[in-house]
Amino acid sequence: MKPEIYEVIVIGMGVTGFAAGMYAGRLGLKTLVIGEFEGGTINYAHDVENYPGFDSISGANLAAKIEKHAKEYDIKILKARVEKVEKRGNCFFVTTDSKVLQTSTIIFATGSEWRKLEVQGSKEFEGRGVTYCALCDGPLFKGKTVAVVGGSDSAAKEALLLTEYAKKVFIIYRRDKIHPEPATLKQVEEKVKKGKIEIINNTNIIEIKGKNKLESLKLDKPYKKKPELKVDGLFVAIGQIPQSLLAKNLNVRLNDRGEIMINKKSETSVDGIFAAGDVTDMPFKQAVIGVSGGVVASHTAYEYIRKTRVCE
Amino acid sequence: MKPEIYEVIVIGMGVTGFAAGMYAGRLGLKTLVIGEFEGGTINYAHDVENYPGFDSISGANLAAKIEKHAKEYDIKILKARVEKVEKRGNCFFVTTDSKVLQTSTIIFATGSEWRKLEVQGSKEFEGRGVTYCALCDGPLFKGKTVAVVGGSDSAAKEALLLTEYAKKVFIIYRRDKIHPEPATLKQVEEKVKKGKIEIINNTNIIEIKGKNKLESLKLDKPYKKKPELKVDGLFVAIGQIPQSLLAKNLNVRLNDRGEIMINKKSETSVDGIFAAGDVTDMPFKQAVIGVSGGVVASHTAYEYIRKTRVCE
Repeated sequence: MKPEIYEVIVIGMGVTGFAAGMYAGRLGLKTLVIGEFEGGTINYAHDVENYPGFDSISGANLAAKIEKHAKEYDIKILKARVEKVEKRGNCFFVTTDSKVLQTSTIIFATGSEWRKLEVQGSKEFEGRGVTYCALCDGPLFKGKTVAVVGGSDSAAKEALLLTEYAKKVFIIYRRDKIHPEPATLKQVEEKVKKGKIEIINNTNIIEIKGKNKLESLKLDKPYKKKPELKVDGLFVAIGQIPQSLLAKNLNVRLNDRGEIMINKKSETSVDGIFAAGDVTDMPFKQAVIGVSGGVVASHTAYEYIRKTRVCE
Repeated sequence: MKPEIYEVIVIGMGVTGFAAGMYAGRLGLKTLVIGEFEGGTINYAHDVENYPGFDSISGANLAAKIEKHAKEYDIKILKARVEKVEKRGNCFFVTTDSKVLQTSTIIFATGSEWRKLEVQGSKEFEGRGVTYCALCDGPLFKGKTVAVVGGSDSAAKEALLLTEYAKKVFIIYRRDKIHPEPATLKQVEEKVKKGKIEIINNTNIIEIKGKNKLESLKLDKPYKKKPELKVDGLFVAIGQIPQSLLAKNLNVRLNDRGEIMINKKSETSVDGIFAAGDVTDMPFKQAVIGVSGGVVASHTAYEYIRKTRVCE
């Protein structure tokens, strides 16, 4: 069977992927956006206050708006898992579980996934107290005591959101000071004053304990003279893993964090392959940066297709 | 008198400048946004369809939303013309017509201005038939005949908007084919079919003629055997000039188009100076790209201030 032929295949359905798809459509390119999760990780953001133009919008709502925007144009969208991408001559072949697609260019907008806590009990209690998303699971902990592990802006935001549900939120951080953005830190400090949040610095979780569900965290340093902290839930916010394996297999250059290296035109080290958003080595990960990177990627792909002998 | 001291001064009040100001505010930096024109050139865009999240919004409305967003944060905004920026040690000194301001970092978001048509009559008939903004002046040409000079996407959009008012719109372009984005070209072609737009390729305007106001354009090639084209208005859309003089005087590296050269972190060639938006060498000029560049510039400035001995 002859494969479907595209000019651009965007892999990833987050805001970055749909922004790239929208612009590729505007530019009249034969475009497919392919991915597994509509909206991507921003779906789990309760409140986005830093996408210019919207003072405050839920992540899911922002993702839906950008998806709708993309659908204004004549592009195809396919919900499927990409298993493999291969390059032969000027052509790329994208294999899903059910078919093979052909394209002149690829845009990786594959984003990132949550990093797991590698301690005993972490896997065992996943979904039974151990979770990665306050927005998804916060309401399950109404009136209870929970902990967030991590010191980043994202970790602090998870803790803030959890104060809406839990009676008490601990932030456990391995270094001596959490480092959210100042605007977030200010809100955390207010919650600390009110006793809703308590920060335990210079401390690691070494084991997650319980019977049927999580009951306590074993720490590497006693807290109030006790080696264990009793909590009902643990929210893990210790960073992201870029989803760059498909790119790596195409010999696209990655940095030592596994992020796809791009230049300001969203070009990677391989001709015809572009990337944008959280999977890249942009040092600051924000929705608007991925969205802009996706727009730039489509424009650069368009210029590339106009100039290069493409795959037909 | 001791000057006011800031951590970041953003020069420019377009969407790029206000996005930078918003983020600098979020990051808790002592921030001033200074400029002459609130909203910048996007104010003159009738309909923006390519800012992801808004399928369609007027440029003025988008600019107002981003300005409002910036004002959610604790930043200062000053409407003034910057006359000079100097660097002494780790400090920058920004001189306006009424005062001197001191800062650790500068973000240039100074955008661009319309390029003028350098032919006889161009200056003489400015405001008397020669104009640069269909959105501003289109309604003055209701039922009349107008021409747009230029072949870019912007020029084509000016022509499209003018069909709402004028009975006939000529596009005069020096090369053999106008080159708007495909989505725009499609709309132009429909208007051409209806006789509302007519494209005159491979032709230059060599003189603008009239008595009290513009009456005709002298062309370097006869049109329908006549050396002059009778029109009531001429809309000039032949490109932009980056407003990079202040940067140049600070020895910031520019490219041969006079654009400020930046890397993907919005850094320029000079420590403490960042730039974003239409004044830079980003090859694709779009609102979302400037906005994202502004966000990145503020973040990079924040990292710079945290690491460097700053000006106090």
